[in-house]
Amino acid sequence: MNTLIAVVGGSNPSPETDRLAEAVGRCIASIGATLVCGGLGGVMASAGRGAKEAGGLTVGILPGYDPASANPFIDIPICTGMGHARNAIIAATASALIALEGSYGTLSEISLGLQLGRRVVALGRRESPEGVLIAGNPEEAVRMASDG
Amino acid sequence: MNTLIAVVGGSNPSPETDRLAEAVGRCIASIGATLVCGGLGGVMASAGRGAKEAGGLTVGILPGYDPASANPFIDIPICTGMGHARNAIIAATASALIALEGSYGTLSEISLGLQLGRRVVALGRRESPEGVLIAGNPEEAVRMASDG
Amino acid sequence: MNTLIAVVGGSNPSPETDRLAEAVGRCIASIGATLVCGGLGGVMASAGRGAKEAGGLTVGILPGYDPASANPFIDIPICTGMGHARNAIIAATASALIALEGSYGTLSEISLGLQLGRRVVALGRRESPEGVLIAGNPEEAVRMASDG
Amino acid sequence: MNTLIAVVGGSNPSPETDRLAEAVGRCIASIGATLVCGGLGGVMASAGRGAKEAGGLTVGILPGYDPASANPFIDIPICTGMGHARNAIIAATASALIALEGSYGTLSEISLGLQLGRRVVALGRRESPEGVLIAGNPEEAVRMASDG
Repeated sequence: MNTLIAVVGGSNPSPETDRLAEAVGRCIASIGATLVCGGLGGVMASAGRGAKEAGGLTVGILPGYDPASANPFIDIPICTGMGHARNAIIAATASALIALEGSYGTLSEISLGLQLGRRVVALGRRESPEGVLIAGNPEEAVRMASDG
Repeated sequence: MNTLIAVVGGSNPSPETDRLAEAVGRCIASIGATLVCGGLGGVMASAGRGAKEAGGLTVGILPGYDPASANPFIDIPICTGMGHARNAIIAATASALIALEGSYGTLSEISLGLQLGRRVVALGRRESPEGVLIAGNPEEAVRMASDG
Repeated sequence: MNTLIAVVGGSNPSPETDRLAEAVGRCIASIGATLVCGGLGGVMASAGRGAKEAGGLTVGILPGYDPASANPFIDIPICTGMGHARNAIIAATASALIALEGSYGTLSEISLGLQLGRRVVALGRRESPEGVLIAGNPEEAVRMASDG
Repeated sequence: MNTLIAVVGGSNPSPETDRLAEAVGRCIASIGATLVCGGLGGVMASAGRGAKEAGGLTVGILPGYDPASANPFIDIPICTGMGHARNAIIAATASALIALEGSYGTLSEISLGLQLGRRVVALGRRESPEGVLIAGNPEEAVRMASDG
């Protein structure tokens, strides 16, 4: 069974967040884990690009019914048709979540991950709920996510 | 169509949070609105008790399939069978959410409510995400929730 | 706790199916039960109209996030945002389902109801899966649905 | 993006259904498509075994939160925590569904697949809803599923 690590974050990231997302995706692939994300744009696409650059496998858990809505770096589009409730599926499917800057959707994924007992690692976030581990760089984030 | 206001908060509340939840439930019923909650214990039951004391109608959006898992103050048990993803249904169903002290589940409901553009009012919480309105007492919380 | 009975059927019903749906809605209200339905048009609206004519309470479990998408006979719109997966919530929430003519959505609700051990009663359907009870008229359908 | 084909069927299949499921899984892998299934036992496990024998990739869309509940042939366990509502995700995720003998759960997946406009192919089923294509053997089922 593959190890699944999620990357969550905003759909309109800053260039720095984008760069972090891509590096995290690359690291996830380089340790042989599978990337899970929400399948759309922004952090989700940057993490996917990074994972594919490193030859990894990518899963996109989409809010809608159309696999074509996935970003071009998604190998396996999961069409939930469940809108924002798909955030709960991302949190549950990942053994660990790496959270970058984002908005309310990202915060819901962090909360649901913590509630489900998944390890949640923050990278480059200004603040995060209690219980979130803090990483200093992409390599450390992936090491913390896979350590357990 | 009824006005639906959700009360969200922890399942092991402090006596003070319990008292606030019951008062909020009472106020929701007294303005003729319908209480929505997660249908289980703690804040959900106290809000339900308050709403029923004031002759209100109560909806419990349950994580499981068994209506008998609802607290005794629920008139309409919605059995989702969807576990924590039912938090997204609570957030979407309410026109406004009143959030008391709670843990990660409560935070996920706040985040999902904000993401869906629902008004979110905090009462007696130490901290809340940006975008949440702060109320000083139960009456004010319900007024802020129904105002808009 | 209210007794919840679902009425499921197509969104473009024949006049005869429409008439049956309205009569079933009326009978559900007249025994003091709460009507559950998908909240949109066709059979869902006709059953709602019948229930409201008889002074009943109505719950619409909607596929989207907008309570205004509910038909005008819905008192309590549950906004799931979960698309067709809301059919599973309708099946789980009802203690019994009364199924009229419909298409694939109706068949999914019947199947999910049977899988969850809910009583499923057919009225005016050409064919139904094994395990479905067959009623001869609206009164009998509601009696069979509430009997158990 | 991978082509995703679902195999649906009962959890207590006859030996003949088991054999068909395994052959279908093998054919799906042999054309380079990814197997999607409910991730548990019976037809789901047999299809998974077949796909892995042929070197394929397998996705299991689980009802619960525990990836360890997946059968041993699942590479990518999607933990939905959504119970029977996960049937809607299976139907939506697959570009086509191949349905073997099963019970109400299988019928709900067929119905939801048809409602979503997915191609649904029956193999070795006594009866199926209108709109389902009928295949005579595993090779034909997979050809019909991937044709379009």
